[in-house]
Amino acid sequence: MSAFLSKRFDSLTPYVPGEQPQDKKYIKLNTNESPFPPPPQAIGAIENAVERLALYPDPEQKALTQKTAELCGVSFENVLMTNGSDETLDFAFTAFCDTDTPALFADITYGFYKVYAEWKHVPYAEIPLCEDFTLSVDDYIGKKGVVFIANPNAPTGLLLPVSEIERLLHADTSRLVVVDEAYIDFGGETVVPLIKKYGNLLVIRTFSKSRSMAGARLGFAVGCKALIDDLKKIKYSSNPFNVNALTAAAGIASLENDSYNMVNCRTICENREYTIRELRESGFYVTDSKTNFVFAVHPNVSGKYIYEKLKENGILVRRFNTPRIEDYVRITVGTKEQMEILISEIRKITEAQNA
Amino acid sequence: MSAFLSKRFDSLTPYVPGEQPQDKKYIKLNTNESPFPPPPQAIGAIENAVERLALYPDPEQKALTQKTAELCGVSFENVLMTNGSDETLDFAFTAFCDTDTPALFADITYGFYKVYAEWKHVPYAEIPLCEDFTLSVDDYIGKKGVVFIANPNAPTGLLLPVSEIERLLHADTSRLVVVDEAYIDFGGETVVPLIKKYGNLLVIRTFSKSRSMAGARLGFAVGCKALIDDLKKIKYSSNPFNVNALTAAAGIASLENDSYNMVNCRTICENREYTIRELRESGFYVTDSKTNFVFAVHPNVSGKYIYEKLKENGILVRRFNTPRIEDYVRITVGTKEQMEILISEIRKITEAQNA
Repeated sequence: MSAFLSKRFDSLTPYVPGEQPQDKKYIKLNTNESPFPPPPQAIGAIENAVERLALYPDPEQKALTQKTAELCGVSFENVLMTNGSDETLDFAFTAFCDTDTPALFADITYGFYKVYAEWKHVPYAEIPLCEDFTLSVDDYIGKKGVVFIANPNAPTGLLLPVSEIERLLHADTSRLVVVDEAYIDFGGETVVPLIKKYGNLLVIRTFSKSRSMAGARLGFAVGCKALIDDLKKIKYSSNPFNVNALTAAAGIASLENDSYNMVNCRTICENREYTIRELRESGFYVTDSKTNFVFAVHPNVSGKYIYEKLKENGILVRRFNTPRIEDYVRITVGTKEQMEILISEIRKITEAQNA
Repeated sequence: MSAFLSKRFDSLTPYVPGEQPQDKKYIKLNTNESPFPPPPQAIGAIENAVERLALYPDPEQKALTQKTAELCGVSFENVLMTNGSDETLDFAFTAFCDTDTPALFADITYGFYKVYAEWKHVPYAEIPLCEDFTLSVDDYIGKKGVVFIANPNAPTGLLLPVSEIERLLHADTSRLVVVDEAYIDFGGETVVPLIKKYGNLLVIRTFSKSRSMAGARLGFAVGCKALIDDLKKIKYSSNPFNVNALTAAAGIASLENDSYNMVNCRTICENREYTIRELRESGFYVTDSKTNFVFAVHPNVSGKYIYEKLKENGILVRRFNTPRIEDYVRITVGTKEQMEILISEIRKITEAQNA
């Protein structure tokens, strides 16, 4: 820390991304990436973009925004493209939260919500999930502040039905609800159509998971025009050229070939169901994940031990040093082959402990 | 504006990027882009990166950071890569300015400094440049706050010598000076070597101008380890994956073939000197630009008129509705052919007015 850092950041603890060790080649099941590359057409689109790389990107990203709006069945004015969905979250915390408007989110959810609230000095409350990790919207009704819900939730994998989110939106239309649908394409139903009915709904999506573009950084927000205009005000005050030209070209090509992405999602869902079945047979409790990861705990073997043993044997998974979930492991769903190796290694670990 | 936007943004006026009209094909001399593409090797590098696009980029950008450090003759720990140099500025305003630490910058300079200060609610002072648009560091000595200096300055094009910036650094080592060297490769001398001597110097650079990568969004900060660590604290709290994998690949390839970029810079400098000579012969006052643009005013013809007439004839330049410089036009230096067309069109305009 230098002598120049503003005192308001003295106690700031930044977000810690999932580890990316370079010591050897791992089967990487720790950061919820897709095991599949983006559609081959994205390569050609990016090549074409390189030729124009000396020019600033379109700050409005008109072509990409239009394609995304079509995907969502909404209008151009209802969509804002961002540099990863993290940037949408950053804009939303900035635009809609302040000292009088706290952020409300679950005690077990995407770790970045807390980091955003802390570094922006926004008051916040962490609302405990139920014993079985389900989220009860009743716990939010009547509380003041902007609600942030990851749906499906991470790292629990659990999905709230659209009807429950609508109940929350309807209960108080003067309160904003932000629904982070990073994992919605793996078996969930999106709340995007509700933006036509509720001006207090902002939906956040990403190309990182179901569209295999984590490396390109592309996300977007969907909401009524007034909410999107608010986010644009922040964007044009901080980062007008937030989406680069290469990523934009890849994004357009991806949406033009979206059936390729959706086939991959179905494969991942099949591999997830296989993994859940096998883990349960090995004695694990596994949540009913509707994401591209599974969240599992063993009655006799600690999460730390499983994590370390798997790492020794070349498989990276994620574990959180967080109350209530210390003994769980979060395992990204990869290819069938990867999951078979995982299951085989996990069996060795649990059987050795049970013996 | 929605009912949810925090009241602290009621009066926020975002930055307005240079226009990108789509109505017809222009000779585009309005946003200081390079007329040359990035080195051809960047294309191959990007293609290779597409195959790994499903994976998150390296949050540390180790390879790119190392190459950039070598370019600058500093260590890895002295460099932070960012999503355009605008993001470095954003991080710096966030980290180092607060209600007790104002920002100080020139009245005529990069328009974004004021926007950052305003939307972050940082107090600021605009220090007038001298009559001839030169910056006197004496105007900053003794004043409290973080100094932001664009060197060479935009839109004036004028360069401060290293000795003057060192005088400012030396005058008060407990005060931070941020030097924005977006245009340094067009004839200026960088202050980067001074970071070894002054812990109160942060230098900001970009790949947008001299390295033909405005479309890719890549910038960086250079400073002592403590300052870079402060910026990292903000980065990891807001946007850990700020530099995407495609841009990183292009950046590495660009630095590996940097002689190509530096040849382009020399060509642009030659074209600039040609343009300045011709404009002066046509009666313009033109500043001694050390950038990839020229800044010019005619005694008899208004800047607005020149801007509009050029636009009618297919040439886009930039004009600012700002006190002291309303009658100037800022013209990006393109290829020799583009500058010849520009000069020919400008002659027609000024001669018609003089007739």
